[in-house]
Amino acid sequence: MGLRRDTRWWGWGDPEEVAALAPGGESMMREREILPDVAPEPPSLESISLLPPAPLPDSLADLVGSENVHTGHEDRVRHAAGQSLLDLLRLRSGELDQAPDAVIEPASAETIAPLLEICSNEGIAVVPFGGGTSVVGGVAPVRGRFDRLISLDLGNLRRFEVDRVSMTARLGAGLRGPEAEGLLAAEGFTLGHFPQSFEYATIGGFAATRSAGQASCGYGRFDSLVSSVRLVSPSGELSTLATPHSSIGPSMRELIIGSEGIFGVIPDLGVRVRPAPEVRRYEGWIAESFDAGNSIIRSLAQSGGLPTVARVSDEQETEVSVATSTPSGPAGALFRRYLKLRGRSGGSLIIVGFEGTGEEVRRQRARTISALRKGGAIRLGQSVGRGWVKGRYHGPYLREALLDRGVVVETLETAHQWSAHASLYGETAAAIRSAMASCGMKGIVMCHLSHAYPDGASLYFTVISSPGSSGGIVSWPIVKSAAVEAIRRAGGTLSHHHATGRDHAPWLAGEIGELGLEAIAGVKAGLDPEGIMNPGKLLPPLLPG
Amino acid sequence: MGLRRDTRWWGWGDPEEVAALAPGGESMMREREILPDVAPEPPSLESISLLPPAPLPDSLADLVGSENVHTGHEDRVRHAAGQSLLDLLRLRSGELDQAPDAVIEPASAETIAPLLEICSNEGIAVVPFGGGTSVVGGVAPVRGRFDRLISLDLGNLRRFEVDRVSMTARLGAGLRGPEAEGLLAAEGFTLGHFPQSFEYATIGGFAATRSAGQASCGYGRFDSLVSSVRLVSPSGELSTLATPHSSIGPSMRELIIGSEGIFGVIPDLGVRVRPAPEVRRYEGWIAESFDAGNSIIRSLAQSGGLPTVARVSDEQETEVSVATSTPSGPAGALFRRYLKLRGRSGGSLIIVGFEGTGEEVRRQRARTISALRKGGAIRLGQSVGRGWVKGRYHGPYLREALLDRGVVVETLETAHQWSAHASLYGETAAAIRSAMASCGMKGIVMCHLSHAYPDGASLYFTVISSPGSSGGIVSWPIVKSAAVEAIRRAGGTLSHHHATGRDHAPWLAGEIGELGLEAIAGVKAGLDPEGIMNPGKLLPPLLPG
Repeated sequence: MGLRRDTRWWGWGDPEEVAALAPGGESMMREREILPDVAPEPPSLESISLLPPAPLPDSLADLVGSENVHTGHEDRVRHAAGQSLLDLLRLRSGELDQAPDAVIEPASAETIAPLLEICSNEGIAVVPFGGGTSVVGGVAPVRGRFDRLISLDLGNLRRFEVDRVSMTARLGAGLRGPEAEGLLAAEGFTLGHFPQSFEYATIGGFAATRSAGQASCGYGRFDSLVSSVRLVSPSGELSTLATPHSSIGPSMRELIIGSEGIFGVIPDLGVRVRPAPEVRRYEGWIAESFDAGNSIIRSLAQSGGLPTVARVSDEQETEVSVATSTPSGPAGALFRRYLKLRGRSGGSLIIVGFEGTGEEVRRQRARTISALRKGGAIRLGQSVGRGWVKGRYHGPYLREALLDRGVVVETLETAHQWSAHASLYGETAAAIRSAMASCGMKGIVMCHLSHAYPDGASLYFTVISSPGSSGGIVSWPIVKSAAVEAIRRAGGTLSHHHATGRDHAPWLAGEIGELGLEAIAGVKAGLDPEGIMNPGKLLPPLLPG
Repeated sequence: MGLRRDTRWWGWGDPEEVAALAPGGESMMREREILPDVAPEPPSLESISLLPPAPLPDSLADLVGSENVHTGHEDRVRHAAGQSLLDLLRLRSGELDQAPDAVIEPASAETIAPLLEICSNEGIAVVPFGGGTSVVGGVAPVRGRFDRLISLDLGNLRRFEVDRVSMTARLGAGLRGPEAEGLLAAEGFTLGHFPQSFEYATIGGFAATRSAGQASCGYGRFDSLVSSVRLVSPSGELSTLATPHSSIGPSMRELIIGSEGIFGVIPDLGVRVRPAPEVRRYEGWIAESFDAGNSIIRSLAQSGGLPTVARVSDEQETEVSVATSTPSGPAGALFRRYLKLRGRSGGSLIIVGFEGTGEEVRRQRARTISALRKGGAIRLGQSVGRGWVKGRYHGPYLREALLDRGVVVETLETAHQWSAHASLYGETAAAIRSAMASCGMKGIVMCHLSHAYPDGASLYFTVISSPGSSGGIVSWPIVKSAAVEAIRRAGGTLSHHHATGRDHAPWLAGEIGELGLEAIAGVKAGLDPEGIMNPGKLLPPLLPG
């Protein structure tokens, strides 16, 4: 069996699926000097030069079968990077500096413990690899103090069992989002976890990175969906009890979730499932301002009335949404009519989605609409909602198309309590714009609010920009650092749902303190005494990573 | 300022509040040979003989002020035990073998870090003490390898701040349940955390023990109410970010919650609050059997329709509820009328409670009633519900009255997924009964289901019994061990909401595995390198406790 090669080796998704730039978007980018005159060279697999793979002990191939040890150029390239902007720029420019010596894909979960034992004894670094969709360097082949490194592809871990009475399911780590949903749908259930990476990200990765999906308001974040979890570490296995709750000590489940591969490998886990929704209804609304839209979502969250999906785009993101919709498309037309009617120059797009039984959807919708109206929002209708649903996984394809043209696109996100939102939003956006200007980047900074809670919400920023005078690989880290510093100053978290990976690790002490680092390092010392698991991730480089 | 002495030194609650045994209960206990002919001697503070307190370094009194260092007999006795059956039997019989050398009550949170530093340097064990209501030996003065031990009473930590926009509050660890609710009520809010220990247990203790209240179906467990938490450990302070969620690594919040004092002291924490409910409505219903009642609650949990409170008593608990209600009281009369009407010999009492706005209560109630009717339950009415609300904190007082008469009363609880509930219930009850018989204990074993979730629920067992041929202090540990072994065999957790303490620690490896122990020990090594914090709790005695 070979490794999956059904995606672009140089980036996101099905290579046959090519996103078209809307004429409105293209002219907007020209006006704002975002679109370079000359497109970069197309990516070339052959142009990537890797060091020859270091030889691995025969015991590994003996254990997993030599057919499951892959050392070919393409497989190594495909496991050398995730999906961050820098990853994509490096893949496209052929500037990869690191790749695993081999990609090993165990045929079953039983092989993982002996494999980690060999790697621990031999001093071989192990990077667990699910869908490879990390945008924070979570699967980067960082060797740390080791000469050899393998990427451990979990694609064969496809366990699936359902307990209909408890409404739980056991899912293998290697199942991609649509695969897990497909298996559950055949039993009448849904997991309800739909991050933008849904199409290629895996169950194991959702748990390891403490993921949150676009429908987290209704279905909950991934951590809240996990009822039990298993971890195979170099020191042995840690398996949490399948109980809805336990008061026995610190939560081991919450220690494994978010561990980002540094303690061991998650081969499978138990999740809470729900009946597949009978009705799905999505609508677009428009609020007077980002602030007004956020207040509406806050009032819904604090009265226990959140819909399944709730998102508010700021004025910039709303403007881009309208400009890039086809001229005859619903959002653009409706929005322009609305603006004309109201004699106003802007507004804030709101998407609300309702899923459940007919009765649940009616009830959710009644409460939501009442809050929207009370907050001064105006209905754009279901066609806008349907457009959002249709395009919900389309962003990464659009990014590929923009990168093809030399435009850089990246996202970053945070979360905080409601009382800090205005300053967090304002200061982060200002820091990004200022850093972009200093790097000669011309572009758009836009934001939306999603993942709302009674006490706060997430803010998600998107940058669409020219690469700047020194090129995206040089300029983006400067912009990203400025954004993170602003987020930290405003008290926000480094990430609401992108995790830590390699890229946020240097800021970890600022988030959880030196003692938090000690706590994680203490756990790692017991579970991975040789430190082979995913070096350089989560813990800052100076600590045993 | 002196330590609080507003409770029985030998047990629960206000000494002026004396529970009366219902005539029906008394005759039931006589019939079943539960009630000994001779009542034990009343407790006597003077009869308790303690070793003289070991002297402590002057630096402690210099730091906290000598007026906050208490070494008197009563204060030491009051901090020598919690509220488990064995604690109460030892206090009543004067057989205490351990007490702290001093009770230290810091005037403010700022004193804790330097205090722990002194204790760490001097080798003095520290037992954090909130309400002292642990039923698993969580505040027992276990010295471990130390010659000296202090009880750290957190009664002065009374911080209170509200963030109305984010609907969160900062609460000091020393606030008792009613104190915190009182402060919040003045601002129009509620926390909604009402465990049976509510009247005396403290905010810090709720967090340290991963507590769950009777209204957890509606308001959530305490861990889900905590938005941020602070820990002062001998190595320094760990403070989690006040964000509704973060994907940065394992959850530090979930590492501190449930840490039972072994990493450090929780001085205060942030909680999510809700508007105080406008309406509270409680009702009693009766199902054909425990099984039928549980199915009703499961259907509500799995359709997202749980009321604020949902409890189902098994047939034994229902029988006792009826027998011990006053003859003219509502539950007894209604239940008897119901039995007569149906020509049946038993049934299962259900309590459902609804809190919120008028609209929320109407909606919750409509869904609940529909499920109750569909499940064949019959309404007993609001008087039964009001009776339950009135008596919800009365159990510990009743236990004192029964102990006065020589009857032993103890509770234990667990949780599991729904598919395992029937076997967990049957096997645990059978193990308790069999162990009681082998100890010559004659009594009643009864159970209720509460804390329901989509995937499972908690089962709460109560034993009311004669002390047995060898006395409760000898016989109860045998019964408890048999119950725990049965729970473990059936796959249930050691505790849904009573925590680990000293009493469950020997079974910890069975619950979280050797690797789970290593993980906790690894964290402790970093945060409490000298191991002074709450020795002998949570981690089994052989590990650095």
